[in-house]
Amino acid sequence: MSGFRLDRRLEADSIAISRLGLCQLRLMNDSRWPWLILVPQRRDAEEIFHLTPLDQTLLTFETCETARALKQATGCDKINVAALGNQVRQLHVHVVARTMRDPAWPGPVWGVGNASPYDSVAAERLIADLVDSL
Amino acid sequence: MSGFRLDRRLEADSIAISRLGLCQLRLMNDSRWPWLILVPQRRDAEEIFHLTPLDQTLLTFETCETARALKQATGCDKINVAALGNQVRQLHVHVVARTMRDPAWPGPVWGVGNASPYDSVAAERLIADLVDSL
Repeated sequence: MSGFRLDRRLEADSIAISRLGLCQLRLMNDSRWPWLILVPQRRDAEEIFHLTPLDQTLLTFETCETARALKQATGCDKINVAALGNQVRQLHVHVVARTMRDPAWPGPVWGVGNASPYDSVAAERLIADLVDSL
Repeated sequence: MSGFRLDRRLEADSIAISRLGLCQLRLMNDSRWPWLILVPQRRDAEEIFHLTPLDQTLLTFETCETARALKQATGCDKINVAALGNQVRQLHVHVVARTMRDPAWPGPVWGVGNASPYDSVAAERLIADLVDSL
């Protein structure tokens, strides 16, 4: 993790949950849909193929475990997983719980309207449910 | 691959390129942005965590190799990787070459306007460049 520093915009837009083996796990502060990000603690990685094969495997493992836990904690209809990086270049993986009743369904969530921040109780409850499922 | 059958909408919207160890690799027939999909040949998989750990690792390997080859073949600014599945439930991974000049930048490509099909020469040229880079 030498030299790794979390991107300032990712830091400002999200709430720390925990550190996994490779990634920081964070909750995007947008209550419209339960939305996590995984940020591999590796300097200068912008694309998944910039990671070593071992780190790629770790990222996959942590992404799958996070997705499974988010599905269990929310009972959502579908998990969306994506590494885009058009706006923030530091490699990060989105794991989003989607329901057919959410305001962006069936489209993607990125670039849709404005974030609706959590009140602290709601964020803490979601994080507790998620950590229980992890 | 017992019982696997490619989803009809994915089949209609894309052009076969090759079969990798786990996935079918296909070109989405939309010339606005070079857009590949990887479809694991496993029945009933809708989420990445429905795959076995070995298949998850294979999918990651094939995704990374495809992303690297697409970057090399196109010289794009950013690769977008995503497994959404809101519209087509059969598990498939999008690998999209994005440039800052493309009409959806910096937003996502899903749900934007209508596909602009390739002429056959352009599709063949892109596929040949991609296969050379794989």
